[in-house]
Amino acid sequence: MTDPPLDQTLRSAQAFVRDALVPLEPLLLAQDYDRLLPALASARDHVKALGLLAPHMPRGEGGLGLSLADFGRLSEVLGWSPLGHYAFNCQAPDVGNMELLHRHGSAAQKARFLAPLVRGEVRSCFSMTEPERAGSNPVHLDTTARVDGDDYVIAGHKWFTSSADGAAFAVVMAVTNPDVPSPHARASQILVPLDTPGVRIVRTIPVMGETGRGWFSHAEIEYVDVRVPRANRIGAEGAGFVLAQERLGPGRIHHCMRWIGLAERALDVMCRRAASRELAPGRPLGAQQAVQHWLAESRAEIHASRLMVLDAARKIDDAGAHAARVDVSLIKFYVAGTLQRVVDRAVQVCGALGVTDDTILSWIYRHERAARIYDGPDEVHKSVVARHMLKAYGVDVAI
Amino acid sequence: MTDPPLDQTLRSAQAFVRDALVPLEPLLLAQDYDRLLPALASARDHVKALGLLAPHMPRGEGGLGLSLADFGRLSEVLGWSPLGHYAFNCQAPDVGNMELLHRHGSAAQKARFLAPLVRGEVRSCFSMTEPERAGSNPVHLDTTARVDGDDYVIAGHKWFTSSADGAAFAVVMAVTNPDVPSPHARASQILVPLDTPGVRIVRTIPVMGETGRGWFSHAEIEYVDVRVPRANRIGAEGAGFVLAQERLGPGRIHHCMRWIGLAERALDVMCRRAASRELAPGRPLGAQQAVQHWLAESRAEIHASRLMVLDAARKIDDAGAHAARVDVSLIKFYVAGTLQRVVDRAVQVCGALGVTDDTILSWIYRHERAARIYDGPDEVHKSVVARHMLKAYGVDVAI
Amino acid sequence: MTDPPLDQTLRSAQAFVRDALVPLEPLLLAQDYDRLLPALASARDHVKALGLLAPHMPRGEGGLGLSLADFGRLSEVLGWSPLGHYAFNCQAPDVGNMELLHRHGSAAQKARFLAPLVRGEVRSCFSMTEPERAGSNPVHLDTTARVDGDDYVIAGHKWFTSSADGAAFAVVMAVTNPDVPSPHARASQILVPLDTPGVRIVRTIPVMGETGRGWFSHAEIEYVDVRVPRANRIGAEGAGFVLAQERLGPGRIHHCMRWIGLAERALDVMCRRAASRELAPGRPLGAQQAVQHWLAESRAEIHASRLMVLDAARKIDDAGAHAARVDVSLIKFYVAGTLQRVVDRAVQVCGALGVTDDTILSWIYRHERAARIYDGPDEVHKSVVARHMLKAYGVDVAI
Amino acid sequence: MTDPPLDQTLRSAQAFVRDALVPLEPLLLAQDYDRLLPALASARDHVKALGLLAPHMPRGEGGLGLSLADFGRLSEVLGWSPLGHYAFNCQAPDVGNMELLHRHGSAAQKARFLAPLVRGEVRSCFSMTEPERAGSNPVHLDTTARVDGDDYVIAGHKWFTSSADGAAFAVVMAVTNPDVPSPHARASQILVPLDTPGVRIVRTIPVMGETGRGWFSHAEIEYVDVRVPRANRIGAEGAGFVLAQERLGPGRIHHCMRWIGLAERALDVMCRRAASRELAPGRPLGAQQAVQHWLAESRAEIHASRLMVLDAARKIDDAGAHAARVDVSLIKFYVAGTLQRVVDRAVQVCGALGVTDDTILSWIYRHERAARIYDGPDEVHKSVVARHMLKAYGVDVAI
Repeated sequence: MTDPPLDQTLRSAQAFVRDALVPLEPLLLAQDYDRLLPALASARDHVKALGLLAPHMPRGEGGLGLSLADFGRLSEVLGWSPLGHYAFNCQAPDVGNMELLHRHGSAAQKARFLAPLVRGEVRSCFSMTEPERAGSNPVHLDTTARVDGDDYVIAGHKWFTSSADGAAFAVVMAVTNPDVPSPHARASQILVPLDTPGVRIVRTIPVMGETGRGWFSHAEIEYVDVRVPRANRIGAEGAGFVLAQERLGPGRIHHCMRWIGLAERALDVMCRRAASRELAPGRPLGAQQAVQHWLAESRAEIHASRLMVLDAARKIDDAGAHAARVDVSLIKFYVAGTLQRVVDRAVQVCGALGVTDDTILSWIYRHERAARIYDGPDEVHKSVVARHMLKAYGVDVAI
Repeated sequence: MTDPPLDQTLRSAQAFVRDALVPLEPLLLAQDYDRLLPALASARDHVKALGLLAPHMPRGEGGLGLSLADFGRLSEVLGWSPLGHYAFNCQAPDVGNMELLHRHGSAAQKARFLAPLVRGEVRSCFSMTEPERAGSNPVHLDTTARVDGDDYVIAGHKWFTSSADGAAFAVVMAVTNPDVPSPHARASQILVPLDTPGVRIVRTIPVMGETGRGWFSHAEIEYVDVRVPRANRIGAEGAGFVLAQERLGPGRIHHCMRWIGLAERALDVMCRRAASRELAPGRPLGAQQAVQHWLAESRAEIHASRLMVLDAARKIDDAGAHAARVDVSLIKFYVAGTLQRVVDRAVQVCGALGVTDDTILSWIYRHERAARIYDGPDEVHKSVVARHMLKAYGVDVAI
Repeated sequence: MTDPPLDQTLRSAQAFVRDALVPLEPLLLAQDYDRLLPALASARDHVKALGLLAPHMPRGEGGLGLSLADFGRLSEVLGWSPLGHYAFNCQAPDVGNMELLHRHGSAAQKARFLAPLVRGEVRSCFSMTEPERAGSNPVHLDTTARVDGDDYVIAGHKWFTSSADGAAFAVVMAVTNPDVPSPHARASQILVPLDTPGVRIVRTIPVMGETGRGWFSHAEIEYVDVRVPRANRIGAEGAGFVLAQERLGPGRIHHCMRWIGLAERALDVMCRRAASRELAPGRPLGAQQAVQHWLAESRAEIHASRLMVLDAARKIDDAGAHAARVDVSLIKFYVAGTLQRVVDRAVQVCGALGVTDDTILSWIYRHERAARIYDGPDEVHKSVVARHMLKAYGVDVAI
Repeated sequence: MTDPPLDQTLRSAQAFVRDALVPLEPLLLAQDYDRLLPALASARDHVKALGLLAPHMPRGEGGLGLSLADFGRLSEVLGWSPLGHYAFNCQAPDVGNMELLHRHGSAAQKARFLAPLVRGEVRSCFSMTEPERAGSNPVHLDTTARVDGDDYVIAGHKWFTSSADGAAFAVVMAVTNPDVPSPHARASQILVPLDTPGVRIVRTIPVMGETGRGWFSHAEIEYVDVRVPRANRIGAEGAGFVLAQERLGPGRIHHCMRWIGLAERALDVMCRRAASRELAPGRPLGAQQAVQHWLAESRAEIHASRLMVLDAARKIDDAGAHAARVDVSLIKFYVAGTLQRVVDRAVQVCGALGVTDDTILSWIYRHERAARIYDGPDEVHKSVVARHMLKAYGVDVAI
């Protein structure tokens, strides 16, 4: 049996997002998780039946085997709704954990952790950021994993472990080799089932007015002498930082792809309002020059974002993530900025309606303010790009 | 007995805000109204005991009798916390209703509606905006008040009637004279106790992820043949639009004064983080040039905002609201923009912490996005200013 | 003989620009036309010897036959220097006149006017804009061409007829059919040798401090009863506006392509300064975070500009200029804005040096401020894009 | 005889600027110094006859004795034209040299150098910046002044010694004490008559397309063993840096005051064009919402600038320059930014006319791009402000 061509996949996905997922968004906006979560589970079953689950994973691992560039086009379609990626089981942080286990997991790890993840039967989380340490500098970690016989005993304090609530396991970043000279070689990544004794979810961190639940949440976690087999370590001891970097490149472009979908959605809301709201009989809001300029600027910036993201994706497909790391830093701040500006303009065009939860704009406005922060703030990515540029002129500047 | 000098009032208010109100903010951020509302009632009792309640009202009406310029300085102090104005009983929309009744209320209206409002015993609301009508064009209203004997019978649909939940009465804007040629002379303002039959609060509109409660809420209301005495009309029949304009001038400058307090608060959070968070041992976040530039730009814009607001307040004190209407439009968009930029920078400096509800930033970021919209969007105010400027050059452009 | 592949053409052009043209720029900056103009003539001879003259023209007309997308890549290379396009004989306004005559010229017009133009033996100009008429609305023209026997007698006042000084002929836009109902069908384009009696160059308009000379100048011209044969009309009577529109699409994308080269040049100057200038021993300017951010933002915006311009060029190659007219409006304002921002940052990085004529920055800063104005100001292009967007939502707004 | 009240002075100055100086501006725009310079000399005679020369100087030194705040109001009036300050003999760099000599000059220095300067009979210049040293870090200087008997022998290379062409003397900053530990105590300021042997004006640096002449020029100078008496040193040996700092504070606020005048002028040009240019019959340019927004934003930013500058001036009048140094850094970058934005908008509103030398805009656009650079670039001033802010939070960050 041959794969359906990409265009057909995109059409199927688009129809599903608009017909089945957008109607569920009011439950998200109302924070009605009691009804939302089962509805999403059912939606995911439909996607599985369509054969579109885990589109980013190789076919051998149970996915659809899309290239990154093709996944980028699909991701924009899914990003139209905040529910899209989840329904198709290609949502962060699971998508990163799948790729990590696919590349570096042992056979046993794949069987136990990866397979049910790809099938969408369980969720996972990634536990790296610590409240007392600057997230932009992940070589500074206080969490430790001490060897005790065949086990690691993990102790530490993490936050922004997104989606830990209800997850089956976490990938925990912990210092295993504190005495190694290079700070980049001290940490390891370790699989920790969340029902392991000593794992304590302190709270679900309220973010922008919402505590969330399940996948839609961000946990603060204490690891109090949590004991797991050393066989749960992913990759080599001390490889944690390298694996984290390897994860972040594709993770960032995944976000960029999704943001383009969200930005298109916000622009659609803006256009609908501009076309339908009348300032005076027969004079739509869109007749205002300021509104016209916002529409055009938004279209230009989204168009630029899409072309740059697909260009970077093709580069990763062709030459690998390392070759495109500067491109990824470039799109990370550019597309995040585009999203924020487009959503802000859409809110302004919608007026009082724009700040209510009657449209999707408020959700995007609030939850994607973090886009300029997570996976490296704008400031770090800009300096990464500049440093690379200046190397071509013979100087190496710190960032 | 003489009044305390302004500086002493400012010091007392500042101490109260920081010592008594800021500690209550976590209840606001947690949306824990069961505990917040009684605590605020108690705080207001303390303010009353300090003799500082309703500082904007004349002494004869039970207030402190501050000039607008002096109230401006106090308002910045109160604006440091989203709870400040409420605790001092000078919060919108009550402040506008107090001024309206003070200026245009009959003796009976003052006794029944104004006096308990000034004493902080009841709350009120202002019911003008309609969901199907552009808020920026208040001459288009569908709500009507039909005369029937000695009564008005009010029918219509309003939203963003802020703080209606739990309020004692509303000032309702309704068309009483639909056939008058000038659209500016068709509506009247009518006092409607909210327990009058036919008043139906459809819902509390969820705004930026929060439904709110009591003062912290925005109602959608249906008026289904609501019958009130004609004596409840404030001012002349058909004067509704003129009274609304008269209200909006001071209302806007009140917001600007408050925003300066909020902007200072956000800047304080930003500075604390820049000073305390370390990127590396001994290197605070504030050593970063980007952070330094955001601090300086924020300081400049807040400084500019304060000087312009006080300048406009003095002009109103000296020459009346009409003389300063262009100045008010100028500060409305300038200060709202300053607040949004300062808060956005503060969020970025705080990183992941900035999007949580662990600081006040998220609340400001979400709830004051509307600052550029309510009481006239930026776009309208800019055109008002430009139209005035161009008149000096001999042309009259529509806005 | 087969054509050299594009990459080889690009390399040859790049080498020539950097080795032969950049060294001539000090003459341009010093406004030393006595030495510059002969040097440029000599440079053009070398380009002709390389077989690279008129790369945009079909081989049948004596050009290189590049597609628009390929010309776009070459144009960026040439745009590195303000002298590039001229040396390769693909500079505005001649490039537009060549295309016009190629598409719509009669055999006699091609022989007399086009052939020497393609060979680089003469220059030409385009005389449309009038001082008393808004350039953004070219249907309003006061210049007339009255039929008298076999001749037109042209009378009118034009300005910003760029490069008229020393040109062999102008293409003049004049009203031939004032009584036609549609204002879009009143004007025609007419070839006028500049030595025709009645052509009076009033002055070379000083622009941004420079009067210029020859190709580097902008003329104000009076046409005082200028008599030319009716056979000098290009295309049908009344087709002037249509031909002007046809000209402007490619004309705008040509500018965008060139601006990318200029923006890259400014970025190169910025990088060199950031790498070489020391704030303190061992601490280059580029170690400053603000400089790093400007570099990265410039790189992002130029990258976005290039991808969008090439995307539009491919669309024109594939589907024609009309299909891509909205894309062209999009890039017109986006790329012009990119250029202005990049140059402004480069000036700031260079400090006092940046405002001198010791670098190319001052020239770009001054002469390309007009990029946001000529061939339609930003405001018009944004509204064109928005109008197109809103049509998809069922409304047609005026622009 | 009593002084004329300030308002009368302002009215006289305003009338003179508009009636006598604005008509001379076309000579400036045409770089016609042969006619401009004598006309300006004559204008200055008229100002002297009005008794308004050197308004910033104390009456005892031959000036008008205005406070800084009052001079600020006058300076805005003069700044309306680039010729205003020169005509009133309060132009940089002479104004700084007058203040320097007034405060720190010996009686002999005052008699020989200051008196003719105040009377407007000679001009002077300030020779500090060096081409190979970052202007933002004036403690790094290569120019030396070696003691030889009763003389200094000065050797070094300076540029941006503004107005050296035709000046009677320079104040030269040179290292006299290279071995002092503190780099802030190594340089001295020395009076050097420009006809002293060894002073070589290498060139007048072309800036933004203009070489200029006389006061309107910027010199590159070599000092080749220039011998002057040690009595020409101003103030103590090693005090050069301190004196330079003392000079820069008022110097910066003088620029800010002048920029407000220029910004008002640009806004006036913008308004005139918006009111008079028609897009279509009966529809002025100012009917466009984008133009209206630019007008309003410009008005807001200029209003903010003026209030902040006067606030800082009053602070200097009351508490001295040191107390207001952070205020001065704040206005330096804010007002320079305002000017650049206002002029840029004015150019855009004027379209093609805006880039010609037919209006004053081109001159402002070109020559005041340096406003964000000279006397400390924006970046330095922002960091100065931030550093001061963060000190209040207990940290001292480098800038």
